[in-house]
This record gives sequence, structure tokens and C-alpha cells, in this order.
Amino acid sequence: MNKGSELWRKAKTLIPSGNQLLSKRSERFLPEGWPAYYVKAEGCRVWDLEGTEYKDFAQMGVGSCILGYANAEVNEFVINAISQGSMASLNSYEEVELAEKLITLHPWAEMARFARTGGEACSVAVRIARAAAGKTKVAFCGYHGWHDWYVSANIGNESNLDDQLLPGIAPNGVPRELQGTAIPFYYNDLGSLEQVVKKHPDIGVIIMEPLRNYKPSPEFLAGVRKVATDMGAVLVFDEITSGFRINNGGIHLNHRIEPDMAVFGKALGNGFPISAIIGKRSVMEAAQSSFISSTFWTERIGYVAALKTLEIIDRENVPAHLIHYGDSIVNGWKDIAEKNDLDITVSGISPLAHIHFNHTDASQIQTYYAQEMLRRGYLLGASVYSTFAYTDEIIDEFLENSDAVFKQISQILEDDTIQNYLDGPVIESGFGRLN
Amino acid sequence: MNKGSELWRKAKTLIPSGNQLLSKRSERFLPEGWPAYYVKAEGCRVWDLEGTEYKDFAQMGVGSCILGYANAEVNEFVINAISQGSMASLNSYEEVELAEKLITLHPWAEMARFARTGGEACSVAVRIARAAAGKTKVAFCGYHGWHDWYVSANIGNESNLDDQLLPGIAPNGVPRELQGTAIPFYYNDLGSLEQVVKKHPDIGVIIMEPLRNYKPSPEFLAGVRKVATDMGAVLVFDEITSGFRINNGGIHLNHRIEPDMAVFGKALGNGFPISAIIGKRSVMEAAQSSFISSTFWTERIGYVAALKTLEIIDRENVPAHLIHYGDSIVNGWKDIAEKNDLDITVSGISPLAHIHFNHTDASQIQTYYAQEMLRRGYLLGASVYSTFAYTDEIIDEFLENSDAVFKQISQILEDDTIQNYLDGPVIESGFGRLN
Repeated sequence: MNKGSELWRKAKTLIPSGNQLLSKRSERFLPEGWPAYYVKAEGCRVWDLEGTEYKDFAQMGVGSCILGYANAEVNEFVINAISQGSMASLNSYEEVELAEKLITLHPWAEMARFARTGGEACSVAVRIARAAAGKTKVAFCGYHGWHDWYVSANIGNESNLDDQLLPGIAPNGVPRELQGTAIPFYYNDLGSLEQVVKKHPDIGVIIMEPLRNYKPSPEFLAGVRKVATDMGAVLVFDEITSGFRINNGGIHLNHRIEPDMAVFGKALGNGFPISAIIGKRSVMEAAQSSFISSTFWTERIGYVAALKTLEIIDRENVPAHLIHYGDSIVNGWKDIAEKNDLDITVSGISPLAHIHFNHTDASQIQTYYAQEMLRRGYLLGASVYSTFAYTDEIIDEFLENSDAVFKQISQILEDDTIQNYLDGPVIESGFGRLN
Repeated sequence: MNKGSELWRKAKTLIPSGNQLLSKRSERFLPEGWPAYYVKAEGCRVWDLEGTEYKDFAQMGVGSCILGYANAEVNEFVINAISQGSMASLNSYEEVELAEKLITLHPWAEMARFARTGGEACSVAVRIARAAAGKTKVAFCGYHGWHDWYVSANIGNESNLDDQLLPGIAPNGVPRELQGTAIPFYYNDLGSLEQVVKKHPDIGVIIMEPLRNYKPSPEFLAGVRKVATDMGAVLVFDEITSGFRINNGGIHLNHRIEPDMAVFGKALGNGFPISAIIGKRSVMEAAQSSFISSTFWTERIGYVAALKTLEIIDRENVPAHLIHYGDSIVNGWKDIAEKNDLDITVSGISPLAHIHFNHTDASQIQTYYAQEMLRRGYLLGASVYSTFAYTDEIIDEFLENSDAVFKQISQILEDDTIQNYLDGPVIESGFGRLN
């Protein structure tokens, strides 16, 4: 057993589930074989506890490091801020600069608030939106974090969140009083929202991911906007995952649909914790009538990291690169699948590409793919998030190695079962109790 | 108007209320005269946008920087981690080390979870405690952040939180369905908890600050522990403010009362955002039956900063220094007040000392004290949080300057009103709408 797996086993005795994020659990990538921990990360490369080097074709820090790990320019800027003191009794002036920058990128918005994590930012947005609407019921579509307002959707019906990214979430520890306060509607299905709204005319907030696994149909976003406007609900776009990947800001800019609020995180600080809520003045001012305050939201690193990250995204046209690399991966996957006679579905926008093997043993095949790619020096997940740190050469090598593994898979499937070729357990998906 | 006040005025047009934390708003220290923003902070010194240097006798980063700003050792450790990559698709091994360290310091605890901000950590603790208890009603005492579970206490009765640090908090944007799910009891008043519990036998969680403005009476903490045990409620000590200031861990260690869970933040990372939840295995394991997950909780800086901060706290016996400096400030204040014939009350444990002028013009006097100390090179608030970066000489000079201002106040009060000597508006306290 490698050092990482050993430490992961120990971690699960000290930390419930082993860490703080479902998406970084070994069980999701390669149970018992995953390196689990890193000592160094740079560009798209990661070194594990044994010093073994891997290229990251998993999620590049769960989608946060779009410029690459330890980006020299961002790091230099952050390190300078730390050297000058990253905390004080006075405020960071960079906080005001970041508010201005985000508003400039999104001309419909006039004010900003900040937090450190995505879940927090969604909760702040929902609090402000509820206060502005004067009605607290929420219609939602997509994944918006761990907070009570969202997970309460599963009270009374534990399958309400099943079609919203994570199946099987139990609402344990969430007050049952919240039952019926958050109601799901479905992506690219305007009718589902119209039904929700008809049944619950007291909805004050509509929050959704404008893009997740598929592009929005032309009429969907416009339709949601119209429903919100017609009923006087505050429309919030959760751009935590989608932002700054295919354009310089929220993906809604491309679709020319203006929400009342938008939420950003992930890519915003290239891995340094920072999240943002922007919105129209009329809505955002409602924050003043509520109590939304936290000491560590004022710390300097997030603001500084985001300012430099946004500068680089703009200067280097990073989204164009992410799309280019994403397209190469998506098209490459399709080519090698066809070549090796494997049936796959690739979903998502190309910088957030997801592969699925259309086979009854899909999980076994994905596990084998990860197992064999790890041997070849790659961290692989079912989702590959592109980074500016990739090069065409790195992508080509990744696809050549994938091609070789696809060939093995194809050969095994001819007269055997993949299970016999796995060194450990099969990957888990969704939300499951981990022991 | 100084540059800081100008930027603060601009900030309020871009950010509702101007920033992310009530305790860093200029209106709480010296409206229109406060420098508001810093460019550099080191030790107990802060430089504002004009380059003017101040010694910080406000709150040292709202109590987070107990080692001093930009502590060289912590910064070096953090900067090294950043240079090696502070984010990756793999986990930070330092996360496991920090869990071990906190459990070693608190032998009753067996597992840990982490977050970035204090409010988040309290929400995580309450979620886990509710899940473990199987009952969601919460009895609380003290301040526990901005989240719905806590602010909901003011639904139906907007004065429920008035005796819990911040008067006047409106629960706008919090679902009214939560009314009655969080019920206050009062510090050092065991009877108030007993009444709450009698009326609400379905309480599953008791959360409290074991210390805030006064030391707990010997019977109070023991009594709360007994009530929790007798009724099968999970007892959570919120040590975000009290931890690592008068001893090496939670203040409950000194009182030999073991909670089921404890929450830390503030001082834990010397200003770098990190918060922790520790608890007994039987309780913490309930986290696995709920969904509590966030990308930026996995980032490396917080873990690294906390590990080095805890090492220094232990090695240098930092709490002893904080008590020493705190005692000097408290006793010095009392001496110069008596000398100048001013009636003051000093409350809090000495490393978290609070001054109050017993006078009908208390706010005006406090404003004048801040105004005159700013001229003399001090950032002053009504609360002074001690730091290891103080020296006896720095404290002596602070008290000499305070003595001179106290003398002015005393002379003015003889035959005039302080209001006539203020250059700007009077400070605001509590939670008020800021325009």
C-alpha cells in the first residue's frame, strides 16, 4: 500500500469521511490505489507523498486552478501581500478593487459581496435575495452546496436532489421545519419551473446553474428570466463552476440574459479561497437589512489572488485556451473510442468534459481506466477540467496513453470481464457513507 | 478627508455596508476620521493608505493575529506551502496533522472537521450535532455568526439576540419556518437554561461560548454539562473567540468541563482563514450521514498556518504573554481613570479587555478617546485584544498617551460637553443600517 493510501486510511479515523470534500475522496477515483495526498503541485503536475510525479487529468483542484497550480504570477502577488501582512484591524483596499472589477465585467451588476467558499456565497446570495423579495421560498436547479437552505430540499422526499448532481443526499441534521422551502426544477425544462411556480406562487428566489453538463437551450434561460420577472422573484445565477471558463465572466454574458444576482467561486482566485456575490443595487442593498458578517471574509489573500487571476484571464485570453484544450480532449476521446470500438458519451462544455462508458460495467471500466492511467503517470477522473497549464503536447500524450488503455479495455471486454483486471475496489459515485 | 475615508465612502457605493464585517466598519471606531484601509501590517503596527504608521490597540485583526501581523515564522511556512502549490486535486497531508494536533490538545475529542470561517464552523457543528442528537432544536448562549440557524432566533421576537452581543439584528431573509428552532439562554444563568429545557424537552443541541465578557461561575459550565447529559443533548462549546488566549487550547480545559464538540477559529491560523470543529467520535461520525462538503475547505494555507501557529503558541507560551499584556492594559486603564477622576468599567478576560465610560455621554467620550489616540498614532477601539507582538514598552507608551487623553476628557467634562470637541460623528454600536 502506498504512503498516500495509508495516510488516507488513518485520516478516516480522525476526520469523518476522511477529508472536507466529497470530490477529493480516493473512493471516487481509485479506492485503495489513489495517491490521495500531494507534497507539490505546479502547472498541471502533482507530486505525491512518494515523490512520484503525475499529470493532472482529474479536476485541477476541483476546477479551481484554471491557470495551473502554483501559477508564478498569482503566487508572487499573493506572497507579496502576505509579506506586507494579510490581516489587520483595517480593511484590504483590494476588496474594493475586486468589487469594481467584477462589476465592470458584468455591467448589469452594481454591487458586490464576498465570502471564502462557494457554499457560503450561495447562502449569502439566497439570504440577500430572500430579504429583497420579502418571500423566502426558493426554486432551484443544480448544485448549490451543503447549507441547510439547499439540503432541506430532500426533507420529506430524499430524491428531490437526485437529478441535481448528487444522488442519495440525506438531510440529517437539517431542521424539518424547512421542508417545502426549497423546490427543485429541471435543467432545460422550462415547463418544470412553470409547474413549480404555479404550485408555489410565494416563491421569492429562483437560483440555478446557467450551465452544468449541457448548454442551455436558447429558450431556457430567457424563459426562466421571464418567469422571475413576471412573478417578482429574484433570479440568481450560480456561476461558481461555469464562470471564467468559456468567457471572461459569467457564462450568462454569452447568452445575453441578465440575472438579478450572480455567484462566483472556484476559478476566481486560481485555487486561493475566494467567492463573490454580485447583483443589482436594488437587490444587493437588502443585505443591509440582514446580518451577514464574518471575520475571515476580510482577509487579504482572496482579493489579491482574484485580482491577479482576472488580469491574467483577460490578458492571455485563458477561456480560448481552455476551450481549445477541452475540444482536443473531447474529440480525442471520441476518436480513440471509435477506433477501439468502445461506446462512450462525452458531456459537458469542453473545458468541463465528462466521460461515460456506455456499458453495464461502466464503473468497473472507469476504475480500470483510472488504474492504468495512474501507472502511466496520470491522475484521472471521469471529469477532466482543462487548465491553461496544458500544452498540445501534453494533451497528445494523454490521448496516446488513453488510446492504449482503451485498446486494453476493448480487448478485455471481448471475452472477459473488467472486474478481473482491477487491483482494488470499484469507484463510488454519488453520496455514500464512507467507512 | 483622508484617502482611507474617501475609499470607504466609495466602498459603500459598491459593497452593501462597505465591507464584509461589522467589526471593521469605520462607523464603529471613528466615523469619517478612521483610516479604514491598510497597505502594510507587521507586529502590532499598521500603515494606512497615506503611509501613516499606527500601533494597533483595536482588535488585532478582530482577534485573529495573536502572534502579531505578518509573523515571520508563520509567513515563511505559509509562503513555502504556496510556492509548492496550495491547491491540487489531491489532499493536503497537513489536514491530517492538524486534526491530530487538535485532538492531542483536547484529549476528550477524537475527530475533527475543518472550514474557513467561524460562522461556517458553527453551522457545521450545529448540523453534525443535530444529526447526532436526532433532534434539531437548539439552545444557545452567545454569538455564533450570521447563518440562518442562529439569526432565526430573532424571528417573532427581534430582541432574542439583544443580550447575545449584537442588539438590533433583523432576521430578514431567514425563513420564518425556523421560528422557535433556536432559543437563547443567558450567560452565568443556569436557571435560564433550565427554563428553556423545561419548556422545550425536544432540544437536541446546546451551543454556547464558554467565555465572553465575563468568566464563567464555577457552577455554570458544570451545570450546563449536566443539563445536556441528562437530556441527551449534544453540548458544543464555541471557542472561536476564547480559544488559545489564556491557555493552549479551548478555555474549557481550564475549567475541566468536557463538551461533546468544540469549535475554533480566529487565533487558530494567526489571521489566515481556518476554523475547526472537534468532537467525540460518537457525535462526529454523524457527519457521515449528512452532506457537508466544500472545495475551499481543502486548500492548504489554513492547515499550514494553523500548524505553525499552534507550534509557536506552545513553544513561546503565548497565552502567558497575552495575559501579562492584558493585565497591564486593564490595570493601567483603571489607574489612569482613577487618577483623572473618570468612572470606567473594564470587562472581559484581560487579553480581551473592554472599556466602558460610565457616563451619559459614553459614546461621545469613546469617540473622543479614539480621535485623540489616532492623532497620537494609535488605532483604538473599545475592545483591546492583546498580541504577542506587544512589549512592555509599547503598553507603557499606550497608557501614557491614554493618560494624557483621559486628562483632557476629565478637564472638558468639568464645565463643557465632549460633543463640542469631536471632529466628526459619534461611533455607532450594535447592528445598524449603514449608509
